[in-house]
Amino acid sequence: MKAYIVQNENALFYECGFSCDNALFLRFDKDEAYFLTDGRYITEAKESIKNAEVLDAKRDLVKKARDIIKKARLKNIIFDPLEFSVAKFGALSKNLNVNFVPQKNFSQIKRTIKTPEEIKLIETAAMIGQNGFERFAQILEVGKSEQELHYEAQNAMRDGGKNKLSFSPICALNENAAKPHAKPGEKRLASGDLLLLDAGVKYRRYCSDRTRTIEMRDGALFDNKNEQKFQDAFRQKIYDIVLKAQEAAINAVKIGVKASDIDKAARDVIEKAGFGRYFIHSTGHGVGLDIHELPVISPKSRDIIEEGMVFTVEPGIYLPDEFGVRIEDMAAIIDGKVKILHENR
Amino acid sequence: MKAYIVQNENALFYECGFSCDNALFLRFDKDEAYFLTDGRYITEAKESIKNAEVLDAKRDLVKKARDIIKKARLKNIIFDPLEFSVAKFGALSKNLNVNFVPQKNFSQIKRTIKTPEEIKLIETAAMIGQNGFERFAQILEVGKSEQELHYEAQNAMRDGGKNKLSFSPICALNENAAKPHAKPGEKRLASGDLLLLDAGVKYRRYCSDRTRTIEMRDGALFDNKNEQKFQDAFRQKIYDIVLKAQEAAINAVKIGVKASDIDKAARDVIEKAGFGRYFIHSTGHGVGLDIHELPVISPKSRDIIEEGMVFTVEPGIYLPDEFGVRIEDMAAIIDGKVKILHENR
Repeated sequence: MKAYIVQNENALFYECGFSCDNALFLRFDKDEAYFLTDGRYITEAKESIKNAEVLDAKRDLVKKARDIIKKARLKNIIFDPLEFSVAKFGALSKNLNVNFVPQKNFSQIKRTIKTPEEIKLIETAAMIGQNGFERFAQILEVGKSEQELHYEAQNAMRDGGKNKLSFSPICALNENAAKPHAKPGEKRLASGDLLLLDAGVKYRRYCSDRTRTIEMRDGALFDNKNEQKFQDAFRQKIYDIVLKAQEAAINAVKIGVKASDIDKAARDVIEKAGFGRYFIHSTGHGVGLDIHELPVISPKSRDIIEEGMVFTVEPGIYLPDEFGVRIEDMAAIIDGKVKILHENR
Repeated sequence: MKAYIVQNENALFYECGFSCDNALFLRFDKDEAYFLTDGRYITEAKESIKNAEVLDAKRDLVKKARDIIKKARLKNIIFDPLEFSVAKFGALSKNLNVNFVPQKNFSQIKRTIKTPEEIKLIETAAMIGQNGFERFAQILEVGKSEQELHYEAQNAMRDGGKNKLSFSPICALNENAAKPHAKPGEKRLASGDLLLLDAGVKYRRYCSDRTRTIEMRDGALFDNKNEQKFQDAFRQKIYDIVLKAQEAAINAVKIGVKASDIDKAARDVIEKAGFGRYFIHSTGHGVGLDIHELPVISPKSRDIIEEGMVFTVEPGIYLPDEFGVRIEDMAAIIDGKVKILHENR
């Protein structure tokens, strides 16, 4: 096998089931691996890590890594040039007689195919996240500002501190929902408003990601996506197009298909309806330890769908100064079939 | 002036009062500066930025930056090698006939001296943060777990979503307070427990940072630090040493003194009391847009105290498996004098 070095926390966790914010992991061989950290984390690291030698590098991890690399007389060592800063890589590699091989997204590429156990963790995250959406629905109240709703969405997802967020939720009303990365403002929720919520949680470090768009009224709920009703006929039309686009994309998911064809399935529906120029992002992205992983579901993607992949399917239509609609679920490839996590609603 | 390029969000904000997560800022001259971003942020950027030309780089910021650099026929351009990844810097600089000059902490160095306006923002953050401590005190209740307290500390600091946190608070009981970077556990709060809270908020992006150590009882409050009482005589002794060390450090703050001498003032008190080996970190760090800035108040620091600096003074004693005490305030140098932000209690 090829030797490599990683430092990103999720990359570390994937390698050895433990991470902290100051560590380096080196694997030279099936039987030779090192986890370097400092005194603050050494006890926990030694308790947790079984597949690598844990070493206290006394705050100078780079020096320790250099010593180990020198001693091992390696020819090549892979690193991710997106992960290391110019300064850190310079200190690590300077005057070392080793070829550092840059490999972008090295760890994410390794993690593209999930094990059944990993998919179960993501499914559990999705289930917990879905409960968060319904908890949030319970506190929806006319007069609350977007900022307040954003704060309460976080708390609903976190459920009294039990869950960590996979990202800061997007909670947007009406025309603010037309910005895919809207920041919450001071607009206040009124009956009949369109509300978009994009949120997820982590379960044992694995992320969920989900978006629903609904209309505010008494008893508004985020489920079932197939039964969301909008009083305004145009909003309903746009919603139905997005839903149909998502359905088309999900139906296109099969082992061996191009990720770009899944994107095309969604894009075709939206383009045929005449709103192609308002679908301004990719159809989806892989999800795992990172909220954005591989594969990429976009027009230019070269990824091919395989067993064990998990990714979002999230077409949207964004009409500037009017409103936006996005519907997002996570799809997993299990036993050759597509499964929506947590469930298809 | 020397040309430079930055990308870190706080560096961007410092340059032009606006930032987003995909942008590059280049300044070649007093009158020539560029802010590059993509379509998602271009409208807001154009509205906000007055001191630079805002350009839509259509998702390929690096290409756009290269074009601009080429056209300007620069000889040298400064960048921070801690800020740019190997991959991004490679793409930016490859085959360009320009000398990229690495300067570590380039933006933080620029930001070491705060204007009176910046200090006011930090002072406001400190005041809001202090209120958060008292809000948290109100919900302290025997039987709550450290994890619950950690969650509620965040909410107390965030005050219904009004404030952003400058960092995830540290909330630790008894022996967990002996770990400077304790993760909250399942221990439950009991009367007479020692409780350490290290927390801060942002006000207009400027951070506050504060630590108090108290004993849990009915009506426990974080203020006044000079009047905290501990039933256990040994805890009281340790607390009083830390308080004296903080006082000594604050008294040592003067324009022209070495930051290392401020550290020494605190360390001497703790060493003379026989607990030197249990003061395992630096005495303080600068605070501004980043929670950790310059100057560094440590034994090895080469920084000299100047008008306009803002930094923490936070000695601590950590007795493994027993308990830890830390007391932290922010000091600012205004009109040649030290001022504690928000106030000295």
